[in-house]
Amino acid sequence: MMEPQEPIQDVAQLGHIEILTPKPDESLHFFKEILGMEETVREGQSVYLRAWGDFDRHTLKLTEARQAGLGHVGWRAVSPQALQRRVQALNVQGCGKGWIEGDLGHGPAYQFTDPDGHAMEVYYETEKYQASAEMRSRLINQPQKYICRGAAVRRIDHVNLMCHEVTPNRLFLQEILGFKLRELLQPEVDGIEEGAWLSVTPLVHDIAYTHDFARNHGRLHHIAYWLDTREDILRTADILMENDIFIEAGPAKHNITQAFYLYLYEPGGNRVEVFSSGYLIFAPDWEPVIWRKADRGRGVYWGGTLPTSFRTYGTPVVETEQAGKEHLVVFDPA
Amino acid sequence: MMEPQEPIQDVAQLGHIEILTPKPDESLHFFKEILGMEETVREGQSVYLRAWGDFDRHTLKLTEARQAGLGHVGWRAVSPQALQRRVQALNVQGCGKGWIEGDLGHGPAYQFTDPDGHAMEVYYETEKYQASAEMRSRLINQPQKYICRGAAVRRIDHVNLMCHEVTPNRLFLQEILGFKLRELLQPEVDGIEEGAWLSVTPLVHDIAYTHDFARNHGRLHHIAYWLDTREDILRTADILMENDIFIEAGPAKHNITQAFYLYLYEPGGNRVEVFSSGYLIFAPDWEPVIWRKADRGRGVYWGGTLPTSFRTYGTPVVETEQAGKEHLVVFDPA
Amino acid sequence: MMEPQEPIQDVAQLGHIEILTPKPDESLHFFKEILGMEETVREGQSVYLRAWGDFDRHTLKLTEARQAGLGHVGWRAVSPQALQRRVQALNVQGCGKGWIEGDLGHGPAYQFTDPDGHAMEVYYETEKYQASAEMRSRLINQPQKYICRGAAVRRIDHVNLMCHEVTPNRLFLQEILGFKLRELLQPEVDGIEEGAWLSVTPLVHDIAYTHDFARNHGRLHHIAYWLDTREDILRTADILMENDIFIEAGPAKHNITQAFYLYLYEPGGNRVEVFSSGYLIFAPDWEPVIWRKADRGRGVYWGGTLPTSFRTYGTPVVETEQAGKEHLVVFDPA
Amino acid sequence: MMEPQEPIQDVAQLGHIEILTPKPDESLHFFKEILGMEETVREGQSVYLRAWGDFDRHTLKLTEARQAGLGHVGWRAVSPQALQRRVQALNVQGCGKGWIEGDLGHGPAYQFTDPDGHAMEVYYETEKYQASAEMRSRLINQPQKYICRGAAVRRIDHVNLMCHEVTPNRLFLQEILGFKLRELLQPEVDGIEEGAWLSVTPLVHDIAYTHDFARNHGRLHHIAYWLDTREDILRTADILMENDIFIEAGPAKHNITQAFYLYLYEPGGNRVEVFSSGYLIFAPDWEPVIWRKADRGRGVYWGGTLPTSFRTYGTPVVETEQAGKEHLVVFDPA
Repeated sequence: MMEPQEPIQDVAQLGHIEILTPKPDESLHFFKEILGMEETVREGQSVYLRAWGDFDRHTLKLTEARQAGLGHVGWRAVSPQALQRRVQALNVQGCGKGWIEGDLGHGPAYQFTDPDGHAMEVYYETEKYQASAEMRSRLINQPQKYICRGAAVRRIDHVNLMCHEVTPNRLFLQEILGFKLRELLQPEVDGIEEGAWLSVTPLVHDIAYTHDFARNHGRLHHIAYWLDTREDILRTADILMENDIFIEAGPAKHNITQAFYLYLYEPGGNRVEVFSSGYLIFAPDWEPVIWRKADRGRGVYWGGTLPTSFRTYGTPVVETEQAGKEHLVVFDPA
Repeated sequence: MMEPQEPIQDVAQLGHIEILTPKPDESLHFFKEILGMEETVREGQSVYLRAWGDFDRHTLKLTEARQAGLGHVGWRAVSPQALQRRVQALNVQGCGKGWIEGDLGHGPAYQFTDPDGHAMEVYYETEKYQASAEMRSRLINQPQKYICRGAAVRRIDHVNLMCHEVTPNRLFLQEILGFKLRELLQPEVDGIEEGAWLSVTPLVHDIAYTHDFARNHGRLHHIAYWLDTREDILRTADILMENDIFIEAGPAKHNITQAFYLYLYEPGGNRVEVFSSGYLIFAPDWEPVIWRKADRGRGVYWGGTLPTSFRTYGTPVVETEQAGKEHLVVFDPA
Repeated sequence: MMEPQEPIQDVAQLGHIEILTPKPDESLHFFKEILGMEETVREGQSVYLRAWGDFDRHTLKLTEARQAGLGHVGWRAVSPQALQRRVQALNVQGCGKGWIEGDLGHGPAYQFTDPDGHAMEVYYETEKYQASAEMRSRLINQPQKYICRGAAVRRIDHVNLMCHEVTPNRLFLQEILGFKLRELLQPEVDGIEEGAWLSVTPLVHDIAYTHDFARNHGRLHHIAYWLDTREDILRTADILMENDIFIEAGPAKHNITQAFYLYLYEPGGNRVEVFSSGYLIFAPDWEPVIWRKADRGRGVYWGGTLPTSFRTYGTPVVETEQAGKEHLVVFDPA
Repeated sequence: MMEPQEPIQDVAQLGHIEILTPKPDESLHFFKEILGMEETVREGQSVYLRAWGDFDRHTLKLTEARQAGLGHVGWRAVSPQALQRRVQALNVQGCGKGWIEGDLGHGPAYQFTDPDGHAMEVYYETEKYQASAEMRSRLINQPQKYICRGAAVRRIDHVNLMCHEVTPNRLFLQEILGFKLRELLQPEVDGIEEGAWLSVTPLVHDIAYTHDFARNHGRLHHIAYWLDTREDILRTADILMENDIFIEAGPAKHNITQAFYLYLYEPGGNRVEVFSSGYLIFAPDWEPVIWRKADRGRGVYWGGTLPTSFRTYGTPVVETEQAGKEHLVVFDPA
């Protein structure tokens, strides 16, 4: 047997995501009262939040902006050395933008963009969340008390970015940052890749790239927070309905990733997934699962179809000939 | 900040466990019909099995023997190079026993024992399970059809070994094999360690060592298989009762590991856990959670206590002064 | 307060349903191996079945016929006197067809048809299921062991009949048989009634009538079996997919009845619902809930829409101008 | 077949329960913030509450008193005529205490005591809960919005009363009020009855009587509120732990009634059950299930035992020779 190259494992995890919102008050109310997240601090135009089960000081930065969309994605390295190695690789590639001193909750970060233009950063030093005496859980292996407010999402799970072309972006993550390709949606052999699911952890995806059928660059498809059980997701659907939050799809089960999903639009317009189930990959030599047209059936494991908006709606919201205006019938954030 | 040493990550996952049974037919019936596992092959005195969601060809080797207990634990390395590095480290330590050519389902393996005398091996080459046309799932990211027979456990999760002294064993795994200590039960500061939970993956444990209050060496506390939901565990309890399988404890929630557990004795006498929930650890700089007496309360998160047998019963079954005979009142496998 | 008339409560429960199938072997395999029901006896062209939690000897009679559809619906009276009272009322109404001596599992039954032509009967004497020693549960309040085969439905729940006009049929059940109207779908004030949900028990429906948008008489919309948890329904969806059974809709939540539903077509063509959740009505003076267009939103509580076939497909299968052939695109039982 | 006597069905449902508390503020905080109930009104020393799924204006009356215990149990009749019939039967029996004009939420009620001395009343006129515009649910068949505060119990389920002798009390309910005996715990043939479970609805119990092993009269064992799923009960256990509420037993499954239970002590000292699962009885000729010693095994379906306090602790709290002080070791409300 020829010895395979040793796998790179310099990125440890998805650390945080910054999203932009034109309706900061409504978005904040949604993330705190309806998703049940905890606000940790406000600074400038941003509010920092975390889920009750997140060990870091925050995992979501919500920033006021003219338009909804992605701020940036923050990746944590496994060690200072690993961080240096990735920065060097990014430099060689020419996509690095340079260091920042850090932000609330983490130390020096190196900023870069993926080929489609999404802003990212990588860093090592992190501030752990320290619960106050009052917020301390009786479970000392839990960062704080279980909060039974709203959906009570447990932890950050993944981010899904729309892009003009999936292939160069997923190769960038694989080759420069050491991500592993887990699943790939390529309906025809040698045809275009409509989606790629990648991870540095045993999670089936820490990030996904999906084809932007509205032909734009740099948009956000969704951010996802985890709940422990499918029952929690069903309960979340009831909570969303009572609070007039638009559910775009689900609760249901994807065939790709085996996710039990529910997609909603937060008041600022960004799509948010509340997610459970899926499966874990421990094998170091995992062969990517490639979905062809015939494998997908009707696109949703148990039947039904995802709405058209799932392929064309992203943030910032744009109108294009390709997308038509179907999704505007479904959802008018104005 | 001083740069920490880079973490070793040469072991990828728990690959398989061999257990011994004096009642091979009854044990096999239990694992197939009641836990719902799949038999893949028989050879000599052994039967090889896997759960429907295990990607490898098998994860459990059930071997006929005079007494119940552990056969061995198999760890898979992340690469051939990683395997070589770990073999070298074991050699230096003087606890290696040498190479075997392999076994059904995996290639060359290097055998060794932990300080307490449990047999282990490490290997890289692995045979993936290939479903026949009839057993192929409609989910191509699932190794085979979902089998709705018995409890239908999904995948191997972890192993728990009893030992005379926890400390040297957990240090051996940390220092020689690169395991990370996740949680530690040490009721008194500087007192004896009653349990240690370690992993190479984000699972809160791939392996645990627990103090053998009956003062033996080399015994098995339990093996554990995973189910996706707590509802599955509750359903398993009903199935066990209808099949006259002894439930020692649970379904309930541990504070340590946050496991939702159910412990039973398979007909050969080995303790088996059916397990769900818990939590995942992605931080590369995780600080082990140390449980003191005051943190544990009554030992089970929601109240109640674990039976005495939980501290003294292991396989092979032994009788000692320390243990008394309490557990024999609870369970008589004869 | 004027004293209301005392409510009639002469019908106790839905006792059994007979359905017809042109594919008796495939249908039987489905109900036994996939839904997980128990076969109790075969006689002539019929096979009698029950769910593991049904207390009566059988609740489903599966009869071979040229076309799929309803055989008859059997209602159990609360007492012999109550039976006599209902027979008298039916006679007065002129819709009675006379007595039969009984069938396997029940005594003398009085046959009649509802205004739309569905065959029904009412009876009192019933044979209880007696488990053999081997099938006896450790729970003596459970008719037999929990069977973990297939979906393992627990008990009969309700029947849904399509009819040309809902109003006369639901009034017939209310006035002649003492059913209570629980919910009514009447999109416009004084407009046509598209559905009526009625019960004699606290269940939100023992029977429903729904408008046949294909304008036929006497068709079956679906029969429904109960599972204890929503998790069981999700698990059933996986089992159906692995066994190539067509899921028409769900798992999802209706706003009407609050049902957590999953609709499938059994191999003979009849629609079957696997059902959980809903709510119970104990008030003796319940005011029917009337759904207007504005209340229903998109028809499914969490979003999405039911497929067109849900309004037009019933058994026997017919083709009409009104229905078009939409559902044939969705499902081709040939 | 001899014609059986027609069953009496004059009582419709458990309407409400009044409990007494020496710690009114703490008890109110518990029922509102931790169980998640809604306060409807305060009057005098009482606060009236309901669960979000209760259709009546309130189902719990919490009254300040020197000692914890039962205030009274309110039963709703099926009609004014039925109310008159039951009042007449109670009068004949000599256990009636006379009419009161009513209370908040219901009309004229006839008060009486059971043989053991527990105060009860029966009434017909009831006030339905009317949600304000803001509290109206999108589900018009639901009395109000789903409230995701605390455990969010859904509806009142049953009451369990301790008594000196079970037999005369359960016969009183059967003979004078038309309750049906569903299950009976009588360990020895012709021995004492340790528990009786009765209902007027298909619920396996609207009320239970259990033997007071501390040999008192008129005490309360527990009141029970319903949650739709077992997952909700597990979630409740986490919420209780984080709020320092004592869990006496569970979550686990009883063999009797098949309840999935969790017992806690509210701050005033009364035991409260949070309950799901169980089974429904529709047969009009149900034969009571009689549990003998051999049927019960270890008393809890999946294993384990109920604590001693479960047999001796009730409210008002008393100390007796028979009870010893075991439960005080477990729970000290002081």
